[in-house]
Amino acid sequence: MASKEGTLVLLSGGQDSTTALFWAKKRFSRVEAVSFDYGQRHRVELKHAAKTAALARAGHTVMPVREFEAIKYSALIKGAKRGKKDRVNKKLPATFVPGRNILFLAAAASYAYTKKIHNLVIGVSQVDYSGYPDCRRGFLSAMEKALSLGLDYRIKIHAPLINKTKKETVLLAKKLGVLHYLKHTHTCYEGKTPGCGKCAACVLRAKGFEDAGVEDPLFERR
Amino acid sequence: MASKEGTLVLLSGGQDSTTALFWAKKRFSRVEAVSFDYGQRHRVELKHAAKTAALARAGHTVMPVREFEAIKYSALIKGAKRGKKDRVNKKLPATFVPGRNILFLAAAASYAYTKKIHNLVIGVSQVDYSGYPDCRRGFLSAMEKALSLGLDYRIKIHAPLINKTKKETVLLAKKLGVLHYLKHTHTCYEGKTPGCGKCAACVLRAKGFEDAGVEDPLFERR
Repeated sequence: MASKEGTLVLLSGGQDSTTALFWAKKRFSRVEAVSFDYGQRHRVELKHAAKTAALARAGHTVMPVREFEAIKYSALIKGAKRGKKDRVNKKLPATFVPGRNILFLAAAASYAYTKKIHNLVIGVSQVDYSGYPDCRRGFLSAMEKALSLGLDYRIKIHAPLINKTKKETVLLAKKLGVLHYLKHTHTCYEGKTPGCGKCAACVLRAKGFEDAGVEDPLFERR
Repeated sequence: MASKEGTLVLLSGGQDSTTALFWAKKRFSRVEAVSFDYGQRHRVELKHAAKTAALARAGHTVMPVREFEAIKYSALIKGAKRGKKDRVNKKLPATFVPGRNILFLAAAASYAYTKKIHNLVIGVSQVDYSGYPDCRRGFLSAMEKALSLGLDYRIKIHAPLINKTKKETVLLAKKLGVLHYLKHTHTCYEGKTPGCGKCAACVLRAKGFEDAGVEDPLFERR
C-alpha cells in the first residue's frame, strides 16, 4: 500500500533514476521529481527527464546548479579539463564530478523542505557503479543525518537500487511493468542517441539488459 | 605555529566570516576564500567579501548558487514570499534560508577537493544565532562526515566562533589585531550601510561591540 507521505525523486533522465521514479509511484501517493541543470555536456537528459515525469504524472522542476561550472572538473562538465594528470584521485574515472550527489541531495532537501516533503528517492547503486563514492550506502546515511540536522526537519533518503546490479534494475523495471518507459532515457557518455555502444555507460547498460534476458526498448524501432 | 595545510574560508562578507578569515590566516599557511552569489537581496556583501579577501591576501572565488532562486523561500532571497503563513517551521525567523549552509558547505567541499584543500572554515556560532539549525555543532559534525564519505576525501570543518557570543567574537578580532578590517563588512538585513540600527542583525552586532567595550569601526568617520 502506498504511503500517504509525499516524495521527491532525483530524476537525471537516465535508466536508474527513471526506474526509481516508477518505484516511488507505487510506494508513495504523492510523487514529485527534480532534475538538475548543472552544466552537463549532455543536456538531452533533461529532455528525457521532463518526458518521463510527464508520463509518470509527477510534478517536475529543473533546478539550476551552477557550482560545477565554477569548478570545471570532470569529463561530464562542459569546458572542464579532462586529462588524467588533472585528477585529484586517479583511481576514480574522469567522469567523476566531485560532490555531485552531495550537492544534488542538499538542493533537493531544501526544495523538499519548502514543499513539506520528507522523503527523497535517488537511483544510485553501489554495486554496478563506477567507483563514485557518493553512490554508497554509508554516504547516504551520513547525508540523511546531516540534512535532517541542518534543516531541523526529518529527511529520509530512499535508494531502492542501492544493492542492485544493472541486471536486477532491469528486472525491477520489468516487475513494475514500466520497461517501456526506459525508451525515454539517456545513458551514453558520448551524448549519442540511442547510444554509442562503446562508452562505459553504454556497455554497462547493454550488459544489464543482456543478463536480464530483456530487450532494451531504447533500441526498438522508433 | 601555522599548519602547512591549506584552508578554504567561507566568506560571506559579514563580521563573523571576516573574523574567521583572519583567524585562519594565523593558523594556516595557505588560505583561500569562497563567497556565494546565491540571489541574496544584499549583494553589497559580495563586494565587502572581495575587499576583505584582497586585504587578507587570500585568493577569492565567487561561486554561483542558483538553487535558492528556484525555491524562492526566505526574506533574504530576492523575489521570495515573506509572509509567516508561508513558513514551514514557524519557530524559525523569516530570514531562514532552508539548507543554506548545507549547500554552501557542499559547494565549498567540491571546490576544495579540486584545489587539494582539506580544511573548511565557517564563521557560524550556535550561541548568538537566530535559531538557524545549520549553525550548530551537531550539524557540522554530521556534514563533515557526509562530505568526507561522499568525496572519499578527508574534509575537516573548522568553526572557530561556534561557541562564541558576539562579544567574544569582537574580542577575538581585537586579540588577532584585525578589528579595523571589520569596517569592510556588511551586517544589516535591510541592506543599509553602515546599518539601519534596528534590524535583528544590526542590534546583535551593536550589542556585541558594546558588551566588548569596543567601538565598531563600521561607524568610524569615512
